[in-house]
Amino acid sequence: MEFKESFRLKDIELHEKRVIRDAIHDYIHIHHTLIWKLVNSKEMQRLRRIKQLGGTYQVFHSAEHSRFVHSLGVYQVVLRMLETECLQEALSDYDQICVMCAALLHDIGHGPFSHSFEGVFHESHEDMSVKMILQESEVHDILASFYYKMPNDVAMIIQHTHPHQVLIQMVSSQLDADRMDYLLRDSYMSGTTYGHFDMSRILRTMRICDGKIVYKESGVQAIENYILARYHMYWQVYYHPTTRSYEHLLQSIFKRLKDLYNDAYVFQTDLHYLLPFLENHITNESFNELDESIVFYYFREFTKEKDFILKDLSSRFLNRRLFKYKQLESEEELQHIKEVAHHLGYDERYYIITDSQQQVPYLHYGQSGELNEIEILDNQGQLSPLPQKSEIVSAILNSKQFKSDQKIFYPKEIKDAL
Amino acid sequence: MEFKESFRLKDIELHEKRVIRDAIHDYIHIHHTLIWKLVNSKEMQRLRRIKQLGGTYQVFHSAEHSRFVHSLGVYQVVLRMLETECLQEALSDYDQICVMCAALLHDIGHGPFSHSFEGVFHESHEDMSVKMILQESEVHDILASFYYKMPNDVAMIIQHTHPHQVLIQMVSSQLDADRMDYLLRDSYMSGTTYGHFDMSRILRTMRICDGKIVYKESGVQAIENYILARYHMYWQVYYHPTTRSYEHLLQSIFKRLKDLYNDAYVFQTDLHYLLPFLENHITNESFNELDESIVFYYFREFTKEKDFILKDLSSRFLNRRLFKYKQLESEEELQHIKEVAHHLGYDERYYIITDSQQQVPYLHYGQSGELNEIEILDNQGQLSPLPQKSEIVSAILNSKQFKSDQKIFYPKEIKDAL
Amino acid sequence: MEFKESFRLKDIELHEKRVIRDAIHDYIHIHHTLIWKLVNSKEMQRLRRIKQLGGTYQVFHSAEHSRFVHSLGVYQVVLRMLETECLQEALSDYDQICVMCAALLHDIGHGPFSHSFEGVFHESHEDMSVKMILQESEVHDILASFYYKMPNDVAMIIQHTHPHQVLIQMVSSQLDADRMDYLLRDSYMSGTTYGHFDMSRILRTMRICDGKIVYKESGVQAIENYILARYHMYWQVYYHPTTRSYEHLLQSIFKRLKDLYNDAYVFQTDLHYLLPFLENHITNESFNELDESIVFYYFREFTKEKDFILKDLSSRFLNRRLFKYKQLESEEELQHIKEVAHHLGYDERYYIITDSQQQVPYLHYGQSGELNEIEILDNQGQLSPLPQKSEIVSAILNSKQFKSDQKIFYPKEIKDAL
Amino acid sequence: MEFKESFRLKDIELHEKRVIRDAIHDYIHIHHTLIWKLVNSKEMQRLRRIKQLGGTYQVFHSAEHSRFVHSLGVYQVVLRMLETECLQEALSDYDQICVMCAALLHDIGHGPFSHSFEGVFHESHEDMSVKMILQESEVHDILASFYYKMPNDVAMIIQHTHPHQVLIQMVSSQLDADRMDYLLRDSYMSGTTYGHFDMSRILRTMRICDGKIVYKESGVQAIENYILARYHMYWQVYYHPTTRSYEHLLQSIFKRLKDLYNDAYVFQTDLHYLLPFLENHITNESFNELDESIVFYYFREFTKEKDFILKDLSSRFLNRRLFKYKQLESEEELQHIKEVAHHLGYDERYYIITDSQQQVPYLHYGQSGELNEIEILDNQGQLSPLPQKSEIVSAILNSKQFKSDQKIFYPKEIKDAL
Repeated sequence: MEFKESFRLKDIELHEKRVIRDAIHDYIHIHHTLIWKLVNSKEMQRLRRIKQLGGTYQVFHSAEHSRFVHSLGVYQVVLRMLETECLQEALSDYDQICVMCAALLHDIGHGPFSHSFEGVFHESHEDMSVKMILQESEVHDILASFYYKMPNDVAMIIQHTHPHQVLIQMVSSQLDADRMDYLLRDSYMSGTTYGHFDMSRILRTMRICDGKIVYKESGVQAIENYILARYHMYWQVYYHPTTRSYEHLLQSIFKRLKDLYNDAYVFQTDLHYLLPFLENHITNESFNELDESIVFYYFREFTKEKDFILKDLSSRFLNRRLFKYKQLESEEELQHIKEVAHHLGYDERYYIITDSQQQVPYLHYGQSGELNEIEILDNQGQLSPLPQKSEIVSAILNSKQFKSDQKIFYPKEIKDAL
Repeated sequence: MEFKESFRLKDIELHEKRVIRDAIHDYIHIHHTLIWKLVNSKEMQRLRRIKQLGGTYQVFHSAEHSRFVHSLGVYQVVLRMLETECLQEALSDYDQICVMCAALLHDIGHGPFSHSFEGVFHESHEDMSVKMILQESEVHDILASFYYKMPNDVAMIIQHTHPHQVLIQMVSSQLDADRMDYLLRDSYMSGTTYGHFDMSRILRTMRICDGKIVYKESGVQAIENYILARYHMYWQVYYHPTTRSYEHLLQSIFKRLKDLYNDAYVFQTDLHYLLPFLENHITNESFNELDESIVFYYFREFTKEKDFILKDLSSRFLNRRLFKYKQLESEEELQHIKEVAHHLGYDERYYIITDSQQQVPYLHYGQSGELNEIEILDNQGQLSPLPQKSEIVSAILNSKQFKSDQKIFYPKEIKDAL
Repeated sequence: MEFKESFRLKDIELHEKRVIRDAIHDYIHIHHTLIWKLVNSKEMQRLRRIKQLGGTYQVFHSAEHSRFVHSLGVYQVVLRMLETECLQEALSDYDQICVMCAALLHDIGHGPFSHSFEGVFHESHEDMSVKMILQESEVHDILASFYYKMPNDVAMIIQHTHPHQVLIQMVSSQLDADRMDYLLRDSYMSGTTYGHFDMSRILRTMRICDGKIVYKESGVQAIENYILARYHMYWQVYYHPTTRSYEHLLQSIFKRLKDLYNDAYVFQTDLHYLLPFLENHITNESFNELDESIVFYYFREFTKEKDFILKDLSSRFLNRRLFKYKQLESEEELQHIKEVAHHLGYDERYYIITDSQQQVPYLHYGQSGELNEIEILDNQGQLSPLPQKSEIVSAILNSKQFKSDQKIFYPKEIKDAL
Repeated sequence: MEFKESFRLKDIELHEKRVIRDAIHDYIHIHHTLIWKLVNSKEMQRLRRIKQLGGTYQVFHSAEHSRFVHSLGVYQVVLRMLETECLQEALSDYDQICVMCAALLHDIGHGPFSHSFEGVFHESHEDMSVKMILQESEVHDILASFYYKMPNDVAMIIQHTHPHQVLIQMVSSQLDADRMDYLLRDSYMSGTTYGHFDMSRILRTMRICDGKIVYKESGVQAIENYILARYHMYWQVYYHPTTRSYEHLLQSIFKRLKDLYNDAYVFQTDLHYLLPFLENHITNESFNELDESIVFYYFREFTKEKDFILKDLSSRFLNRRLFKYKQLESEEELQHIKEVAHHLGYDERYYIITDSQQQVPYLHYGQSGELNEIEILDNQGQLSPLPQKSEIVSAILNSKQFKSDQKIFYPKEIKDAL
């Protein structure tokens, strides 16, 4: 009999189960040695030095939590899912431990300031997480020494290539442990009321049908609540213009850094932790050394560089002199602002940024595709997509008339001169 | 100078301000002697014996709170509104004390089990509240002895006939103190997560414009949140089929009682507290004696009457043998159930009830009309109705495809026989 | 093999498990047919018409919850205890179902306004609960038809005579499901912060040792927190002088009623629901008909009696004209007040009440005796009583200097005349 | 007329008042330009990179908040105090703005990892805060350009030398805005229940008497609750052995660093940000550049140094290989462990740490002294120290029998070898 079949979770139970106090789930329960080892790996501990919300804490000041606690939270939600009767029946012990690992590790590929960093350095965090799991790293070693096929089985869940779709859905789908934890956690930490929803009820209505996770009709309103919590958190918190302003500033710094490097500018600062990124040969080792502390250190150093732009942007970042923003009314307005910027000596490549967020809530609900559909199981055993069972989700999906939110971001000095 | 103009709130300040602990607002603050007297009037104290949610506590068992605490809560929300700069400027001291009184007293006309009772006895609770304020009662005396025109001024706020529209809006409109308190309170007491919204933010964006209350654009998402909280509370809590089942049972009892009375049935029970209602000459005095305790007493007595139907229904009510329910599929089905009922000896007038709740969230948002529109003030000083500023509210309003929820309610004995 | 040994919980599992929303425990889980039947018995449903906190809602106005929801809560805490490894091992399936029933039913013997009623009618609610379980009643029939010895086994838990001490401790001891639920619930409902403590942590440190429940040393601080929560709830909420005032008023009414009855006063009111109590032959049937609604009905009726005292006291009760109170300074003061009362025509037997609450927190911690000691298990496997492991509990126990809180309660009219 | 007397708060009101969402106080309100400028100073923004709880987030993982949000919170509590009638009367507008500034700035002298850092570098954070305010810095300039005496007036509040004692008490005393914010915040963020208390009630019972802040007797139980919250937070959270272990590790690194520097070890790493500290000539400028990011950078660098001890300790720190701990039983045990350490090649100066926390709750209540006494004002206008009015505080103070908690901290490798 193969290991996958003979493996029993109780064989790796900790002598004394661990519990970790958590503001969201009350306690995180750790029952198995493998999980405990992973929590203590250096890749996981590094996530303590990466904020969950990038620049959001510049506007929701108490939302300073890290990806580390979020990762523990996602693992805990998966654990609760695994306690339901339907998943107990559907999943082997080996599948269960694999999905716990995937939940815990799904974010280890996040760079500092997550999305801003990703935007400049062209490597998605999912790919990076997979690379960390499959190649040389502490977590790889822990998984591989447990069972040689395990790194691959865990990575397939994160990559959406695992044959058992239920495992993928648990970690990454329209209604997954990742989103459930972050909505609850980000809402609690930021002190907003928007992210509340009834997770217990959603989990109680979860069923397995045709080899995938579906939800009983009695759960529809709890799911609507979750969809709306998501919609509101996006607009109130994640897309807040001050957050965007902070992230644009970050990207301008990275862009200037890269441009200078490519132009053979001579840095006073020793860039060694950044070199792998500037030269595009990132190893797991070099990636693991890059956290927000290191980046803050460099920004501090950059305030002493001779290049005015790098120096100025870094100083703005450290001391929160964020760009101002306004609604962009027309192309002419943009041109006018650029002229003023030029006149004042600001390089528009780094100092004038526009972006556009379309108020399209269904985008948050997701593109079409099997995995992206929340399916509802009615009393007659029929499956239907959520919008057929929810007037409110359907109304949102069919709505056409969304205004776009186009904004321009620029230094206060330019604003004052206008 | 008329009293209304010369009156100053500080002249009626309590020597020592009262604070009342409250689970929702932390504290209810009572600053003025007039308010303290009203709180202690017998009409207000009677509301302690009327549940806020009628039959809802039969399904959300911890939602056992009374209209008394809700009334204190509405008053407290009005007090917070009055602390805002814009209302301080817009309202005279006399207007302020009037609207505080209206908030406190708006529900004194509620009969036992509120809506069920109203359905059978044809007097709206608003009309009854107005009657209690304008005619002989303790609250009338308290108001009139303060200032002879006051009963009328307070009643006009509740009746929507007051010349100062802001006062009406505060107590009764699409976004009023009444709804704000009950969504927060019913949600907290029932243990659901649906009713949360950010009241502080809504109050901070309140402005007066063209003589009415409007909201700054920066408050739109908090208002969306409130609209959706309302939508969910309606469907998850207020329209829960078990609640409806309980209320149908109540109405069947009242209906049977009335039919027997009109048919000159000889009651063993002395009906004196119910006579004014059975004979349609309700006085303030007789109304005030009718609370849920009295009704429970009568239902206990009815379990000893000879009439089988009254006896049986009352016993079901006291011991929570509620009617079962199912989705009604067709007219044929209804006929079939009625036949079975007849066969088993159940009188369909009292034992077979159908109702229909249309899933039309915009109805909760309200019919058109000036008062019923939430208006948004943009940065240019322009007013627009909420749906023009909110994609999600607009989507809901434009949606056409709502399924109706038609249900049939009947005794378990019939269900088992089908 | 005897039934007790062969019985398996899974044999009585509900086809579809029931969950009930609850503000304190999120959900109450009902897994077994027997429990569901008991919840729906008329004795349990009657508890919906008995308030958990007697007169406390006269001062903490939002604390209007019933003994019914509290009973569900105690059952739910027992259910959580039963999920711990140590109790799973220690208890047979039959013991488990018995203790669930005892938790649910422990309060069915409570009369209206609980303690005030008990004070006048000389039957403890525990004895009455036992009588309801052992003799003719719906709950008796449900238990007996499940297994003929069950009423007795459940009653023994409530009576503290069951041979298995663990079962008694779960329901009624220094640290039991009853107190855990009521501290959390009363605190939540009253909106105070005093009753919070970390139940999860306490349950996690629970162990069985020498046939009784003890707690690991790592739980000491959570238990200290619970002891202090208890201490504060007693002084802030349960012993609040306004609560005591309300209860004294109630007792005066009951006392006047009894005195009149014994003096052969001719009542206008038909007393039939009260007769069993006035004549001291209470049956289960008559007890079950007596709830707070009935008592409120009688108080309403009493406001129309000729006896001035009964009429006046009842009217004060319904309209919350509570007695005032002050610190009692001396015997002379008491005499003086009595003279004034006499002069004004108030009968001191009903209108002048004194009481004395000693500020002795250790009394709440309990008298000595095996069951009343919380025992702590240290890492070496030694047991010690809590005070040896907790400086703060020890300090409280050794403290001698407690002032007593002697108060006098009397009508406002007397106060004004002083 | 001097500036201090003529100054009016309304003269510096922001055109549009700022509100900042906060998880603890709902909103932080900023009404005045001066406060807004200070919030945006680089000294305040630096506090975003200093964790509030040092190493506590290694055991209460979700407690990752910074001194920045705590400082905003302390300011907000002071603002609420200033809204009370008694402080409005007692304080001039100038005093009010001074105490707001002091509340906001009281922590700007905190070094990275607060207490561990302080322990090694011998400068208290209060002294450093004062230095930042009095000498060259952005906050100094903002204050001085507002009014030349202001830096001194604000510093005197923090130094406890201000003539107006009420101002000192608000920011730093037994019952101050600092402790109120941190108990509530640390409790919320760590997910524990211990730190709750009723701040509203305490503030409502605050009075000024004899030129100092005292509390009405009706606030005693809320204050007891606060004292006990403090006691529990200390033992459950702040003195948790894992927190102490983390801090010992930090101190060992700093100690090794200093020893190497004094021994003229040649560092590979460029130490420039640390030099001012190693050479004891800290300027405001150099202090301001030192935050936790910089220290993390250095620890990362130290993992590449040749010195085994510095390298090893830094790696343990980054990857959370904390020292284990056990109760220290005897001097012999300590000697034995040191021998084993020596045998295994661990230098006991850095690898064997003992500490001792005495369980003396009254120490947390504070040493004697006028400022350190919470005084209670009774109905007769008499002042008494809290312990005379609180049995529980008195019991704690008179208790003699506290066990000490002496622990030894050492690497897992040594533990395994024992």
